Amino acid sequence: MFFASDNSSPAHPKVIEAITQANAGYAMPYGNDPIMESARAKVRETFEAPEAAVYLVATGTAANALSLACLCPPWGAVYCHRNAHVEEDECGAPEFYTGGAKLVLIDGKDAKMSPEALERTIGFTARAGVHNVQKGMLTLTNATEAGTVYTPAEVAALSGIAKKAGIPTHMDGARFANAIAATGASPAEMTWKAGIDVLSFGGTKNGLMGVEAVVLFNPELAWEFELRRKRGGHLFSKHRYLSAQMDAYLTDGLWLEMAQAANSAAARLSEGILKVPGAKLVHPTEANAVFAAWPRGGHRKAQEAGAAYYLWPFSQPMEGPADELLSARLVCSWSTTDADVDRFLDLISG
Amino acid sequence: MFFASDNSSPAHPKVIEAITQANAGYAMPYGNDPIMESARAKVRETFEAPEAAVYLVATGTAANALSLACLCPPWGAVYCHRNAHVEEDECGAPEFYTGGAKLVLIDGKDAKMSPEALERTIGFTARAGVHNVQKGMLTLTNATEAGTVYTPAEVAALSGIAKKAGIPTHMDGARFANAIAATGASPAEMTWKAGIDVLSFGGTKNGLMGVEAVVLFNPELAWEFELRRKRGGHLFSKHRYLSAQMDAYLTDGLWLEMAQAANSAAARLSEGILKVPGAKLVHPTEANAVFAAWPRGGHRKAQEAGAAYYLWPFSQPMEGPADELLSARLVCSWSTTDADVDRFLDLISG
Amino acid sequence: MFFASDNSSPAHPKVIEAITQANAGYAMPYGNDPIMESARAKVRETFEAPEAAVYLVATGTAANALSLACLCPPWGAVYCHRNAHVEEDECGAPEFYTGGAKLVLIDGKDAKMSPEALERTIGFTARAGVHNVQKGMLTLTNATEAGTVYTPAEVAALSGIAKKAGIPTHMDGARFANAIAATGASPAEMTWKAGIDVLSFGGTKNGLMGVEAVVLFNPELAWEFELRRKRGGHLFSKHRYLSAQMDAYLTDGLWLEMAQAANSAAARLSEGILKVPGAKLVHPTEANAVFAAWPRGGHRKAQEAGAAYYLWPFSQPMEGPADELLSARLVCSWSTTDADVDRFLDLISG
Amino acid sequence: MFFASDNSSPAHPKVIEAITQANAGYAMPYGNDPIMESARAKVRETFEAPEAAVYLVATGTAANALSLACLCPPWGAVYCHRNAHVEEDECGAPEFYTGGAKLVLIDGKDAKMSPEALERTIGFTARAGVHNVQKGMLTLTNATEAGTVYTPAEVAALSGIAKKAGIPTHMDGARFANAIAATGASPAEMTWKAGIDVLSFGGTKNGLMGVEAVVLFNPELAWEFELRRKRGGHLFSKHRYLSAQMDAYLTDGLWLEMAQAANSAAARLSEGILKVPGAKLVHPTEANAVFAAWPRGGHRKAQEAGAAYYLWPFSQPMEGPADELLSARLVCSWSTTDADVDRFLDLISG
Repeated sequence: MFFASDNSSPAHPKVIEAITQANAGYAMPYGNDPIMESARAKVRETFEAPEAAVYLVATGTAANALSLACLCPPWGAVYCHRNAHVEEDECGAPEFYTGGAKLVLIDGKDAKMSPEALERTIGFTARAGVHNVQKGMLTLTNATEAGTVYTPAEVAALSGIAKKAGIPTHMDGARFANAIAATGASPAEMTWKAGIDVLSFGGTKNGLMGVEAVVLFNPELAWEFELRRKRGGHLFSKHRYLSAQMDAYLTDGLWLEMAQAANSAAARLSEGILKVPGAKLVHPTEANAVFAAWPRGGHRKAQEAGAAYYLWPFSQPMEGPADELLSARLVCSWSTTDADVDRFLDLISG
Repeated sequence: MFFASDNSSPAHPKVIEAITQANAGYAMPYGNDPIMESARAKVRETFEAPEAAVYLVATGTAANALSLACLCPPWGAVYCHRNAHVEEDECGAPEFYTGGAKLVLIDGKDAKMSPEALERTIGFTARAGVHNVQKGMLTLTNATEAGTVYTPAEVAALSGIAKKAGIPTHMDGARFANAIAATGASPAEMTWKAGIDVLSFGGTKNGLMGVEAVVLFNPELAWEFELRRKRGGHLFSKHRYLSAQMDAYLTDGLWLEMAQAANSAAARLSEGILKVPGAKLVHPTEANAVFAAWPRGGHRKAQEAGAAYYLWPFSQPMEGPADELLSARLVCSWSTTDADVDRFLDLISG
Repeated sequence: MFFASDNSSPAHPKVIEAITQANAGYAMPYGNDPIMESARAKVRETFEAPEAAVYLVATGTAANALSLACLCPPWGAVYCHRNAHVEEDECGAPEFYTGGAKLVLIDGKDAKMSPEALERTIGFTARAGVHNVQKGMLTLTNATEAGTVYTPAEVAALSGIAKKAGIPTHMDGARFANAIAATGASPAEMTWKAGIDVLSFGGTKNGLMGVEAVVLFNPELAWEFELRRKRGGHLFSKHRYLSAQMDAYLTDGLWLEMAQAANSAAARLSEGILKVPGAKLVHPTEANAVFAAWPRGGHRKAQEAGAAYYLWPFSQPMEGPADELLSARLVCSWSTTDADVDRFLDLISG
Repeated sequence: MFFASDNSSPAHPKVIEAITQANAGYAMPYGNDPIMESARAKVRETFEAPEAAVYLVATGTAANALSLACLCPPWGAVYCHRNAHVEEDECGAPEFYTGGAKLVLIDGKDAKMSPEALERTIGFTARAGVHNVQKGMLTLTNATEAGTVYTPAEVAALSGIAKKAGIPTHMDGARFANAIAATGASPAEMTWKAGIDVLSFGGTKNGLMGVEAVVLFNPELAWEFELRRKRGGHLFSKHRYLSAQMDAYLTDGLWLEMAQAANSAAARLSEGILKVPGAKLVHPTEANAVFAAWPRGGHRKAQEAGAAYYLWPFSQPMEGPADELLSARLVCSWSTTDADVDRFLDLISG
């Protein structure tokens, strides 16, 4: 019953196996290993993007911060949702890597940006010319921090506003696989066909040990990305172990299979919670995370039984009336079992 | 016959095994996993430093750049050898992480800093007060980029000059194990007992997949390090895979065993090369790298047979008289076999 | 009828005279001129702060950005009002000088921070530990961007919240003299006695050519400030011309005399506008700026007659019904005359 | 007898007069004043560069650092002479403004870069691809820190090497007027016709209060320069006082007249020193600075009589044999009089 985060799950056995196989003998360093060639080809094929530049890093923060630094000058505004990971959970990595760009916060329900809010805010930017930060870039998160999902049409609407303003769009896809599994869209439809210029294509939260690909659909920025990656300390000498993970991820649909499993577990969990008297959803359950509220009594039983998850927001007190609602975040992963879900539901329903 | 770099070697099977074991079940992220507790304890024990703060990152550049950023203000001088990795091979990562500190280059034979040169250069610094960069810090590399080794006494002499100037000392120990294997000094003698404040304790070049520990002997900087690591994108969510590598590294002396094997292979190689008519060493062979020159004819045979290594400097032409000396760098690792060494020696002697 | 900004006014003749006198003969550079000694003594006396470190720079953005950089680490949050100059009008200079700190926006009426909003936002900061930016510092603007003024008690209330959170407080006093003239508080009461650690003490908008003093009430940061100033290119070699301006400013109360004149002019303007049928204030007039709305017809007449000022916000259309209200910002300075004010009032009343 | 630095001289009376005149009435801020239009036109005319973008800042460090930041990416090498002001006297401002570029030091006699050394060093850069900093830009100082001067042909030779490597060239012309006065070259011949892309055109050391123009011969970088200037806190609101200085500087040849006077004074001083028994030049006297050595006895007499200048290097002891040579730097300016020079020569000859 571990729902604290998808980053607490193990790697898929096929990933460990791929690493073990990659370990045989000598290999050229820094991404010049043959497995990287294979992984790159699979990324390009997956995204129907034969020209895309593809790079691997080991953390989502690195993938995002390097992408932003390539797309936005130091005096630019990075438009992001108020609850975006880049704003809330990276300790200022975007500011560090961009050389001090300003994250400009956009509102919107369920962690999804409102097109009106985006358009209005972009309209305000740089209205005093040289005195203000300038229009820089847009970054969207899909699936979002609230477990919701943008459709390709929604992505296109937002990236279209950016394009009209002359700025590029990045997608933080730490949970990209979950968004694809949720919508049934193709990776291409969700990205470059919808106006995405650069994607952080996550693997760590979805069954890898620690690999994210950065996909630059416009390869003009490739060399700058390579320099920034090296300069940030994110170029691995023994790169083959990153390559092997990404290669396994994209072999026989493993990435989607794991995301589907995670999404299914979340759906099962979500449906089950709604049967608890008084329970309700805080955000719609569209990907692999459930944001829901149910009576404190159920929380107590679950936590006493060792269930791991976060009250959301953190600050809600465990002491208090048993029938008062407390809200929580529950994250499923490829390794979440029906048994775990059902046991959890039993506990909170009791 | 792969002597291009120690970073082209595979990880030791025990490391892969440790990762496989670490993969079981759920684990708390970001270094809060129990294996990290074990690894931390082993680092502290190895260095006889029970108070030391210990952090893991995945690349040597990250370990160095984060260490420098904690020790040197943006307006400080980082005294380093002209051939140091931080100067030559990190694409400016030290400048990026420190916010623009200046690397001030110190000369010295065989990539070892001359105490006189260091003292003289420190003496020049900030002689015009606010107009110059200020005395910042010292960083030493051990084993060096030329395959030589500082003794603890030599380290203490240099760090003593730094201390007199009121500045701290960092050691880039990407090949720290090789220096320990070479000198027989204890890790404590080579570091904090010799005046080192922060150590980049390398594992990647010595049989791990990709882990370096940063050891802060003075734990006052610990929180700043944590923030800089996160902000740099170097805090791993699935941290257990780093923990497991470091834990295996320090179990049953694996780290030293691997370094000894690498050093022995280099010694065998070095001795063999000296038997080649006309051959000579460019630098003394003290750790796991051999810098030597032998006739072009031998190079041709080796390269035709598929031996991998770099001419050093790169720019020497393969065409030319067969008896002319060309110099090269040959790096051994834990996985270098006597058979490989002997076959190589046969080729270049032929 | 020039109400576009106080930075469009000339310097006071006494300032020009001081510069002319300072020009005689040779003088030591970089602030080692005797006039700086005099100016420093006058600043200390004015603020009853005999230990304060006092430095001059030539722009308000430099004064603010350097102050922030001394008070806030790169991973810190700078709490400021949503409409603060540091947020809206410095093209990211705070981010640049701090190395990427995050400006966290606080709401509050009339450009004055609400203590509740500040406390709540500080409470949210760093709730996820190393993953978030950390509590950094507070910065207040007095007089504010909306022409309002904090009393010493209001400043103390806000700085007290900061102190409770363990962080320092800066005051952007580009219009500090106007705030003093408005409240009758002493400079000490408005600053260090109310919890201010560092003050940007403005002169440029109040009759100087271009000088701001940075007053560090705690001189421990003095040397860091000097290094940052030099490194930012803000240390003047021919410093005497800055010294002379600040010295003249604080001679015989010139600084307050000019601020009083500006505030009086704004009061006269404000009162006059309120007599225009339909007119109303957008913010209370407390210092030297008037934010008011009156019918479009009056705007047209004023602008046709050459009155210079900004519609606020900029985007309001001049075409439209004559009786519709348009809002504007009108800024007075030491050189604003009653005649100008009255002529303007005549025009908009017509 | 003030030879400590040209930045200790007063401003020319015509400059003070221009400022006084500029003070009349209201003026648009931030460079939108009519005097700036005039000054810009005069710069363009002086340099025969009708398309050049021209901006004013108040310090040489700002002019240089902003120029470098526009020309060099954070991962670039800035090739400069070992004794360049950007390397030795700006407390790391170039590193700060560029976001951490690396100053790569080139040797050469009399503070003039050796073309061979430049070519060799550029050849080394980035030989390990992504692992090294990349070729960034060249910066030359004219007149140099050693009082010597590059001819247009020498500038063209060096900028030609840069061009061949695909990188731009900046000139630090803090003493540009002295170089023009020394060579008789036209400003155009010394700059864009000789391959200079951006010039820091100094005024402060040559009779202004504090103004340097940055001349971008290729105006494509203009907007980026404006943003960097603002973000650095170097955009003046009351810009007219900078405009007025530059306008006066370029009126009726004042700038060249002052430089000629300074150079003549240095020549007189240099010739006189050579008549002192035992005296010799350390560098040729080509512009407004004299680097010479003469017996300690003469230094003692001069200093007792109140002559201000620096021993060069600083560290030479005033105690010791009277006939031992000590070397010194003596800088002349527009305001140096023959009487001062002759009195000084009398003292050291005694």
